Parts: sequence; C-alpha cells; structure tokens
Amino acid sequence: MSNDFSNRPRARDLGINIGILSPGQYNAITDVRGVRVGHSTIIQGKGALVPGEGPIRTGVTAILPHGDDLFLEKVTGAVVCINGFGEVTNTQQIDELGVLEGPLMITNTMNVPRVADAVMDWAFDHSAAMGITTWGISPIVAETSDSYLNDIRGRHVTKAHVYEAIDSARDGIVTEGAVGGGTGMICYEFKGGIGTASRVLPDELGHYTVGALVQSNFGSRHKLRIDGVPVGRALIDYDERVQRESQGSVIVVIATDAPMSSRQLRRMGTRATFGLARTGTQGGNTSGDFAIAFSTTRNRPHHSTSHTLELNQVVEDTQLINSLFDAVVEATEEAVLNSLFKAETMIGRDNRIIYALPIQETVEIMNRYGHADVHLP
Amino acid sequence: MSNDFSNRPRARDLGINIGILSPGQYNAITDVRGVRVGHSTIIQGKGALVPGEGPIRTGVTAILPHGDDLFLEKVTGAVVCINGFGEVTNTQQIDELGVLEGPLMITNTMNVPRVADAVMDWAFDHSAAMGITTWGISPIVAETSDSYLNDIRGRHVTKAHVYEAIDSARDGIVTEGAVGGGTGMICYEFKGGIGTASRVLPDELGHYTVGALVQSNFGSRHKLRIDGVPVGRALIDYDERVQRESQGSVIVVIATDAPMSSRQLRRMGTRATFGLARTGTQGGNTSGDFAIAFSTTRNRPHHSTSHTLELNQVVEDTQLINSLFDAVVEATEEAVLNSLFKAETMIGRDNRIIYALPIQETVEIMNRYGHADVHLP
Amino acid sequence: MSNDFSNRPRARDLGINIGILSPGQYNAITDVRGVRVGHSTIIQGKGALVPGEGPIRTGVTAILPHGDDLFLEKVTGAVVCINGFGEVTNTQQIDELGVLEGPLMITNTMNVPRVADAVMDWAFDHSAAMGITTWGISPIVAETSDSYLNDIRGRHVTKAHVYEAIDSARDGIVTEGAVGGGTGMICYEFKGGIGTASRVLPDELGHYTVGALVQSNFGSRHKLRIDGVPVGRALIDYDERVQRESQGSVIVVIATDAPMSSRQLRRMGTRATFGLARTGTQGGNTSGDFAIAFSTTRNRPHHSTSHTLELNQVVEDTQLINSLFDAVVEATEEAVLNSLFKAETMIGRDNRIIYALPIQETVEIMNRYGHADVHLP
Amino acid sequence: MSNDFSNRPRARDLGINIGILSPGQYNAITDVRGVRVGHSTIIQGKGALVPGEGPIRTGVTAILPHGDDLFLEKVTGAVVCINGFGEVTNTQQIDELGVLEGPLMITNTMNVPRVADAVMDWAFDHSAAMGITTWGISPIVAETSDSYLNDIRGRHVTKAHVYEAIDSARDGIVTEGAVGGGTGMICYEFKGGIGTASRVLPDELGHYTVGALVQSNFGSRHKLRIDGVPVGRALIDYDERVQRESQGSVIVVIATDAPMSSRQLRRMGTRATFGLARTGTQGGNTSGDFAIAFSTTRNRPHHSTSHTLELNQVVEDTQLINSLFDAVVEATEEAVLNSLFKAETMIGRDNRIIYALPIQETVEIMNRYGHADVHLP
Repeated sequence: MSNDFSNRPRARDLGINIGILSPGQYNAITDVRGVRVGHSTIIQGKGALVPGEGPIRTGVTAILPHGDDLFLEKVTGAVVCINGFGEVTNTQQIDELGVLEGPLMITNTMNVPRVADAVMDWAFDHSAAMGITTWGISPIVAETSDSYLNDIRGRHVTKAHVYEAIDSARDGIVTEGAVGGGTGMICYEFKGGIGTASRVLPDELGHYTVGALVQSNFGSRHKLRIDGVPVGRALIDYDERVQRESQGSVIVVIATDAPMSSRQLRRMGTRATFGLARTGTQGGNTSGDFAIAFSTTRNRPHHSTSHTLELNQVVEDTQLINSLFDAVVEATEEAVLNSLFKAETMIGRDNRIIYALPIQETVEIMNRYGHADVHLP
Repeated sequence: MSNDFSNRPRARDLGINIGILSPGQYNAITDVRGVRVGHSTIIQGKGALVPGEGPIRTGVTAILPHGDDLFLEKVTGAVVCINGFGEVTNTQQIDELGVLEGPLMITNTMNVPRVADAVMDWAFDHSAAMGITTWGISPIVAETSDSYLNDIRGRHVTKAHVYEAIDSARDGIVTEGAVGGGTGMICYEFKGGIGTASRVLPDELGHYTVGALVQSNFGSRHKLRIDGVPVGRALIDYDERVQRESQGSVIVVIATDAPMSSRQLRRMGTRATFGLARTGTQGGNTSGDFAIAFSTTRNRPHHSTSHTLELNQVVEDTQLINSLFDAVVEATEEAVLNSLFKAETMIGRDNRIIYALPIQETVEIMNRYGHADVHLP
Repeated sequence: MSNDFSNRPRARDLGINIGILSPGQYNAITDVRGVRVGHSTIIQGKGALVPGEGPIRTGVTAILPHGDDLFLEKVTGAVVCINGFGEVTNTQQIDELGVLEGPLMITNTMNVPRVADAVMDWAFDHSAAMGITTWGISPIVAETSDSYLNDIRGRHVTKAHVYEAIDSARDGIVTEGAVGGGTGMICYEFKGGIGTASRVLPDELGHYTVGALVQSNFGSRHKLRIDGVPVGRALIDYDERVQRESQGSVIVVIATDAPMSSRQLRRMGTRATFGLARTGTQGGNTSGDFAIAFSTTRNRPHHSTSHTLELNQVVEDTQLINSLFDAVVEATEEAVLNSLFKAETMIGRDNRIIYALPIQETVEIMNRYGHADVHLP
Repeated sequence: MSNDFSNRPRARDLGINIGILSPGQYNAITDVRGVRVGHSTIIQGKGALVPGEGPIRTGVTAILPHGDDLFLEKVTGAVVCINGFGEVTNTQQIDELGVLEGPLMITNTMNVPRVADAVMDWAFDHSAAMGITTWGISPIVAETSDSYLNDIRGRHVTKAHVYEAIDSARDGIVTEGAVGGGTGMICYEFKGGIGTASRVLPDELGHYTVGALVQSNFGSRHKLRIDGVPVGRALIDYDERVQRESQGSVIVVIATDAPMSSRQLRRMGTRATFGLARTGTQGGNTSGDFAIAFSTTRNRPHHSTSHTLELNQVVEDTQLINSLFDAVVEATEEAVLNSLFKAETMIGRDNRIIYALPIQETVEIMNRYGHADVHLP
C-alpha cells in the first residue's frame, strides 16, 4: 500500500483557473469543515494477467462527512444518477429518507460487495446495537471499473484496506491521482483517478463552501477540453490510444456546509453533469455516472427525543442557489482536471500502459488557444 | 349552478367506520386548519349530445391550502403519480421546488387549459406584479373525465365558474357527491364525484390532522369493496352496467398540519394508493391517478429577507410517520366511499343514466358479510 | 440445510379464492414457462443470541428467469420502489438499460454483500470473459430483515448456500413458508416467508401467464385482511404480540410471458402495491418494499450482430393491460396469503417465538364474515 | 405576423463547426424525414408596457413529428426535466405511455393554457370522435418566459396563431432567431430564440439522423462559451447588461429516425444537458429546462387490431448509442448557437433593448482564442 504524493502539478499550479469563484484553503472537498478523506492504494505484481491473482492496480477511497459517529448522526444527502450503467449501493434508501449514513466508499466495480461487507464490519465494531436492538448500517459504495489495468476478478480490496481508508481519513490536503479507488482508472484515455477542488461563496452570499471529489474513469481522448480548449484533439496522436470496450464511468461527491435539504442537494448534484460536460464527455452509454451530494449542517439523529426538529434551510434565493450551482460546476470541472494532472503513467495488467496527461504539451496547447497565462509550474 | 346538499348519508352515518383513527370535527379535509373548499357545479340541458353545446354535467372544485395570499405564502407540497394517463399541471415545478402556489383546482379533462387560464386571471387580479416585476403563478389543475355524462368537448367551465369555486371556498362542512369537478364522475360504475374525510392523531403523537379529498371517477363494478366486503360483486346485476372505453381516474388531495418536508409529503401521497386499493381498484390502464399532498405549517415566502429559513420538520419517528401514513390510507378510503354514498343518480348526455350506490342494499350486504353494526341512517 | 415441505394448506386449499382470474398449473411463479426457483434454508442452534455465531434462522432464495445463460440472454425487466427503506442492488442499471441479468436473489439485509459477491463467483464460473474481455455481471440481490429471529450480524449465508439456491432451482412446485430467504421472516406478526401464486389470462386475451413470488416480512397484526375480512383484528389477542422496532419489508417478484417492455413492466410492478394493500398494510415507514418485474419473451443478447432487434411488444390495449394488472394484484395478494398459510411456528434467537397463522381460527373468522365456503382442508 | 428571414449567418457560415459528426442537408430538425416546423410570430406596438395590451413580442412554434394524423399515429417519445422551474404539459402521460400525440408547441409561459386549448380545437377539427367515442388529445405545450420584452400578462397567442403555426409547418429550411415561440427570448443576455441543427451518423452506424431545435432563453452573459471559447467574458462590457430577476429557461426538442424506445429516448434527451452545458450555463435556479425526444420510426396506432406489435428497436450497441448521444450533444450545442447568431436586436416593452450577439466581435474573439478558421461570412 502506498500513498506517496505525486510530484505533478494541479490545474491551478499551471494557471488554469476554472470559473470565477475562489477555491478554499486546500482547494479540496476537505475545505468543507469536518469532511475527511482517506485512501488505500493497492499496487502489486506485473506482467500477464492471472485472473484472481494479479497484477493488482486498485484500491478504495473513503469520504467521511464528519468526525463523529456517522450512523448516529446522519447527514442530509441525495444521489443523482447521470447514467445508470453502474451502481451506488443503497440509493433507494437515500431517496426515501434523505440522509446518508456512514462513510462513502469508492472502489472498483467488482469489489463493491466486499467493500460493503467490510463497512458493516467496521460499523459493527463501533456499535453493539446494530442488528440486535436497532437496524444496521446501509453501506454506501460507489464504483468505476479498473479492468483495463487491474485483475478486477480478484476483488483484491479486503477488509483491511477498507479499514485503512476509513481510519486514515483526515482533513487538509487530499492525495490525488492514481490513489485509493482511483488507482487503476483512466480518463479521456490518459491516466485518471482521484481529483478534488472547492469553491467558497462571497460573504454576502453566506460564505458557504462547496467541495467536489471525483473518481474519474471516462471519456474518449478526442473530446477532452481543458477550460474549453480542445486539448484532446490536439493530443490525439500523442500515444497509441486505448481500445476499450466501454468508456468507463465517473463518481462525483459534492459536500457543502450550506444547510440544504435533500431536495436541494439533488438539485446541486444534478449540476455535476454540467461540470463533467465542460471537460468534453457526452456521458457514455456504458458509463455509471453518479453524483452524491451531502450537507454537513443539517444532521439527523438516529435516535431522537421529540417529534420535530428545527432545521435551517437555504431559501430558494436565486442568487444564492445559482452561486451554489456555479460552485458545483466549477469544482467538478476542476476536480476532473486535477485527477488528470496529478495522475502518473501506470503500467498494469498484461503490461498495458496508460500515460499521464503530458504537462508541457498541454501548457503549449493552452497557450496556442489564447490562454497565455497558462504556464509550467 | 347549484350547490344543494345531497340528502344521502355518509359512510360513517351508516356505521361504516374505516380504520382505527378518529376523524376530525367535520370528517373533512377542512379539519386541517386553514384549508378551504369551494365548488362550482354546472348542470344544464338534457337529451342527445350536441357537441360543444350540451347537455352539461360538469364543474370545478377549488381547494385553498390557507386563507392568505397563496402565491406570496407558498405551502410545502408534493405530487405523486400513481398512473399517469392524465394530468396535473405544473408537477415538474412542484418536484423541483417542493412548494405549491395558488389554489388547487379539479375539473374535467378537456377543461384543464381554460381553468388554468382563469386561475391566472384570478391571480393577476390579486397581484399587480406578476409577469411585470416578478414571475407569474403556475396554476395547478387536476382532472378526470366526465365524457360519459357531459359534453366534454364544450369545455363549459368558464372564468366565472373558476372564480365562483375559489371565492366561495370556505372551511367547515364540505359538499360531497356530484358537485364541483365531481359533477359528472362515475365510480365503480355508480355515481361518484367529490368525497372527503379526515383523521386526527392521538395527543401523544402530536394531535396532527390529516385530511383527504377525492374526485372519484374509476373502478369496475365487480371490484368494489366497502371495508373489505365485496359489495360490487353482490351488486353486479343491480342495473344495466356502463360500457365505457376506459376506467376513468381519480385525484386525491391530502392536507396536513404536520410540518412535513416535500420529501415526506411525497411519502404520504404515496399512501393514497393503499387507500384506493382497499376500495378494490387495480389502478386501471387508462387512469390518471394522482395524489397531491401539502402541509399548512411549512410555508415558504415568495420574497424572503435572509438566506436561510428555520423550519420545523417531523423527524422520521417510526410510530409517528406510520400513524400519518395510516391517516392517509384511512381518510382516502373513506373519502372514496363518501363520494359514492353522497352522490345521487344522474341522467346526462344521450339520456345516459348512472345510478347512485343503493344504500339499503349496501347495508344488507354489509350485514350479510359480518358487519352487523352497519345500519340505515 | 432443510427444504422440507410444510404440511400446512395454501389459501386455495381452504377455499380462499382471491379475485376472478384462474391460477396456472402450480399456482406459482414457475407457471411462467422457464422460470425456476431454488432455496437454501439455514436453521442452526437455539437459545440466547451470541452475535456472529447464532442462533441462525435465515437463508437465500434464487429466482431464475430462464434456463439458459442469464448474462448472455438478459431479460427485460424493471424494479419499482414502493418504500425505499431497504435495498435491491443494481436498480439504477435496470432503470437505465431495461434488463435484468443473472438470477434474482432474496436474502436477509446484512447478507446482501456476501450474496452479491457469491453471485459474482457463480457468474465467473460460467464465464471466462467477465472482467477480462467484457464487463461483469451486476448481481441483483433483494432483502428483508430477519433480525428478530436470526443472528443477522453473523451474515451466515455463504457462497455454498448461494450456489445451492441457484443450482437447485427448478420449475414446478415451489416450496413456500419459512424457507430460503424467507426462513426468519414475520408477516402481520405471524410467521411469514416465501409465498407464490399465478394467474392465466383467458385465451381471447392471449393466454398470458403472470406469476408472483413474495418474501413477506411486514405488517401490524391488527391490519391483516384476508380477502377483505379483518382477520388480524379478530386474532389480536391470539398470542403475545411481537414488539419490534420496525415493521419489516416485502419483496415481490413478478414474472410474465407477455412481451412487455421495461416501461410496461414498471407499470405491472406498480400494481404489486395494490395487492399488498389488500392484505391490510399501509407500507410502513421502515419498510423496504420493492417489486421486481420481468418478461421471459423479450430477451436481449449481451452480444448482438446487428444495430436493431425486432421485438414483440404488447400494445396498450386497455382490456389486456387491465387484465395483466389484475393478474399482478391477485397473484401478489394470494402470494402473501400463501406465505402466511404455509409458514410454521418458529423459535429463534433468545427463544423468541413467532406463531404460525392459526388455520382453524382463520377459517372460523372467514365463515363469520360471510365467506361460508371457506373450510378446513 | 412576420416570418422574414434574418440576414445574419448561422454558426457554420462562420466556420464554427461543433463536434465531429456531419450535419444533414438543412442542418435542421427537419433533416429527420417527416418532421415539420411552423411559426407564428407576433410583434405589435412599442413603448411603455400597458399590461394586457402591449407591446407584444411573442409567438408560438409548432413541431410536427410526421405528416399524418398525429393522434391516430402516436410517436414514441420521452420528456426529460433538466430543471423544473417551468412546464411541459402532459409529461406524466408521456412517461406512463411512452408516446407523444399531436404537435409539440412552444410558446411563452403564461400562454400555455390558451395554446393547449387551441390545440384541442385544432384536434377536434380533425376528429369527430374525440371526447365522444374516444378520449381526447393531451396537448404538449412547452414554454419559456418573454416577460422582459413582451406584455406576457396579455397572453396574446390566440387560436389563430396556433393554427397558423401548425398549418404552416413544413419540412426543409427552418426559420431561426426571434421567431415563433422564440420571438421575445433572451440567451446569455443577447437576443435568443429558435435555433436548430442536425447530425447524420456514418453509414456503418445506420446513417441515422438526429435533429435538435431549441427555444433559448437562458444564461448569464459572462458564462457564454462558443466552441469552448469564453466569448461572454470577452463581451462583458459590450452593452448595458440586462438586469433580470431570473435566468430564463430552455426547451430542447430532439428528433431521430433511429427506432428508439421511450427508455432510450429518455437517455438521448438526457444528453441535451451536455450540449447546453458546453455553451456555458449551469442550469439556473429559476430555469425551466426540458428536453423532449421522439423517434419517427416506432409509431403506435391509437386503435390497434392485435394484442402485440412488432417493433424495431436499436440495440444497446455501445458504439451506436454513443454516436447517437454525440449527435444530441453536438446538435443541441449548435442549435443554441444558431439561435444566438440568427436573432436580431429587438426593442420591446418599456423600450427595453436586447442586442444581437455581435458577429464581427465574436469572430475576432474566436480568432484570438486559436480558432483561426472562424471568419466573417
């Protein structure tokens, strides 16, 4: 397991500033107070695929909405399905009840059951009551497929990895690129994975923070746009392109400290589509594209002592809602770019190579397309 | 126009007591404080149908969630589509924003546009700003088809009728049966129309009130159940049965003073299906079956002065939520029965006759099926 | 593991004939040609609960839509969420693509991940290509909670049990009651579990078959209705009633050989609600109530050789669609009753007892409520 | 009423070629064989607003899916709600039945009821049976608000205008810009309105055609992107910008001759979001953004003579579906641009001016951002 930082720059290090809102301190989902992120990255073996054994290029990422008991203090949330060729577990319950419970996990497609099972173990460790005097946790596990680089049949993410991701989760800087659930992912036929970004609204609009974290695994090379520039078309002959049966998927997690209801969080989650679209994708046929949005300031207790709660809720003030929508779009777009900029070239199963997005060439293309202030770090 | 009361009994007058919760003072949707109901009933002409002229057996019913400005003080609400062969206007906006604005109108299918247009007129009369300095009202108009008895092509519900229904709306006793939008409706091949009922929760569950109002226009005779008794099967040869191309529709309006969010109101509205099912229907192929649910105690102002509102919300307390669900089911079932018991035999277009549910025979059938305490009024 | 037949009668053996359509040969979901059902039942230990060890009262049920490769020949299907406090895995994919792949599994809540993982194993055994040259199966696992009787934390349904359920699946008679996924379930505070029923349409409506299978785990005693008769109210003091935190859940599987599109199957699945409602439930707050509907005659190949398929589809003929809806309602209602009639009294965790619905008392109550032809078998 | 062509160029006339697929003969929705478009444009009066009288800057547009009876031959269709602060009438019926009947009408918000009523008149003229021996048409009317330029309270689109739009509908070139329903609309704070575009798939992917038509009325100036170039930001001080309470809306109509099911058309309609997003919008809070998609080659008869239909359906072939999705995205993006390029400066209510997008400046900006082949026409 490895959590080494990539030395590659983030989009903003290159002068690529998406949109007009300002990012938070870390330009990460952890800028929403209380949110923690942890990864477990599994890279083992090389050469020919031996199904069930390796090589292994996979992992799991945990996003914790807050630092207290996530089952006893559920956060308001919503899941939006952009294209449903994929899975986020327990979405019906989130729709019905408007809350998320437990950590959000992102891993590879075939590991979903084992990760969900391990989340139960972890939750049981923290609760003697579950399944005995109260109902149990409904694990939320999202996925994209790393089968191009990884021995996905092996389902190599074990209980130990899940615990590592959850227990190592912390605030502050988030490791990006080919880490955690994003380890073996591919984005616009370059190496992708985990990326994050954030936006802070102006004081007069409440100074709310919106953070996005993506696990990127989608897109055809020629469609890639960076701040509108057709970078993918310009890099079309950069390497021998991947021939894959499908076009992958993307998971977008949106966090905010604005006191949004589940209905409003659904509206925010819907805006992830706009951020993704700006990077060029059309939402591929075989994509499992989902946005999971939550608010950290409208918690609902598992046990309550009265029939009603008094809750703050953002009013449908057009200026504020539009700014929150803008924040989602900008942060999602930049998170996808960060997943591309931070991820390094990877050799996986059957010696398949997925190259990192070339920094220097990208800067040159941006400059050629009128973005003169984009520069090497 | 006529609003005469029917002399026929309601279900409860016969000792038919649906469920276990207690009804409110009027056993009507108006038991939810603030709710008002008004009808305009149009009965003109007889004999052969002259399309566009008559005979006319139709009308419109208005439900006002409260007595203040319904546009400036929007109520939290939700619309549930049970079977979508029909229309409730502006449902997407209710889904998106979680509020209803203006009176709820129920009329016949082909009159929906004219009623919606008249609601705009009525709203313009009360607001100089609409369409000029702010956006306009999104009228909510629901419908079922009275084409078996009425000259539906004539679209005879005019602006004057819409104003009459809205302006005459009041609390207290609600006129039921073949009145308002229910004038020409047919239920289980007997005369149907408007029916209402209510339930009050026990003090320890907050003493909340739930009211239901239906416009009933659905069901095959042989399926009719009253408190579980197969009354329809026993009355199968009571008269020459209607041969209709389709099986009509039903609109259910659910009101409550429990501070429910739009998500929770959607859950409550969903329970209308259970109440309808208990009367025997399977939800016919050509039915436009909708439930519209609103809370009177979570209003949202059109103009607000801060970014957030503090709102009460019922917690997902199982006992309370289940009681609210029970209240919806019981009130919906009883409202359908009341629409049947109160409606009188009607002769309409082409001298077609739809008979009222026969009271004495029904009582006898109920007695035969073990309901010994059912009796003539 | 035990699959012994219960000696108790089915509803129809007692003269309780729900609705007006005729059942198929076995009055079971297997009357839809090709459909197979298999169970694995796990009953071990007794006495005090030792979390993670026992006593065990659980299992898993497999429904196979046809006898060929279920991944390569996907069946058209739809999932309907009636109340979402529960899970059916991979529903977004079914919504998006309109097909089901693989066997449908029903088990207990906390065993969902392990069962899903085992379905992958089973699918890998039958396909060398999955995850290597094509994408993998999306397991469909539904659940209700047996935590009142079972050591649910133990997640005792293993890969061997899943294989047993799938590999033993066959057509013909379906074992009902406390078997398979239904082993530890409770219905209207009596012992519940697996129940099934079917209906065949008349020749002039295509002679289509509709089958239902339920895993019943819902309902408050006093609400139970059998063919409309308030049996639950009459049996309210039959035993010391269960005090449970929640009210359980129900899974309904609907199969048909009518060539229905996924949109039409969604409409059929929606009618399961009407069948459930007739047994008395209001759809409890904490219920995970789902209907999964599929057609066996509109298969879609995983690999296809042309851009278009020619598919039969039932037209929206009102009489036919209504009869298919009636068939769903009747079969669902009867399947719930069969789960009650067939299940035997069970002693589980902490010596908790759930009694079987008493046959003789039930017959007497039915007689008292005018159903004179109901009789002991 | 005026239908004069604008002399302004379309995007493609300037060398702005969106995407990689080829447009059809007219680069219009009418490239889908059978589809017809007609407008009625109403421009009357000037100066100060007299509510209910004028000035009038509005109209209505009709899209006819084919040239036969649109009620008796219904086309398969779907409606997708992107943001629901607006209305498309009768969407529940489209969801339930998977078909559209009648012409699609697009007008201003407050005229929806009157246009729907006129569509009924038009349908009655063509059918003596409606409302008498069969049910009636469910009019499909979409809207965006022209209240900034138009006397919207006046609801000036009359029956005569609706008939004009429907009866003048034809194939071939589609008039774009400030015409029909688009007459008074505003897009990115420039003059918007009606725009259209099309794409044809390569022969090896079936040579299917996809057409898009938009009524554009959305967007903040600074967000406008043309083929990725931040044109809006560069033109931010071009004029005194509009200060509007809200950000308008957009209606996207997608037509295809690929035999897509309603489920698949929903998937195609969802891709309109990606096309809109590429022009810069985030989907504003107060937007009523909808996509209506239909196929011309899977018609369903109102009256049928057998229980089943044999229908062609596109298989979920990844390459083909992705190309259809690409076609939707590209055509939608280009249709929005065409609505901007074709619309001319308009002076409306209270002498408010909305300027046309300046062609020469736009070309210069495109050149500055590396799009050297963009040129004046």
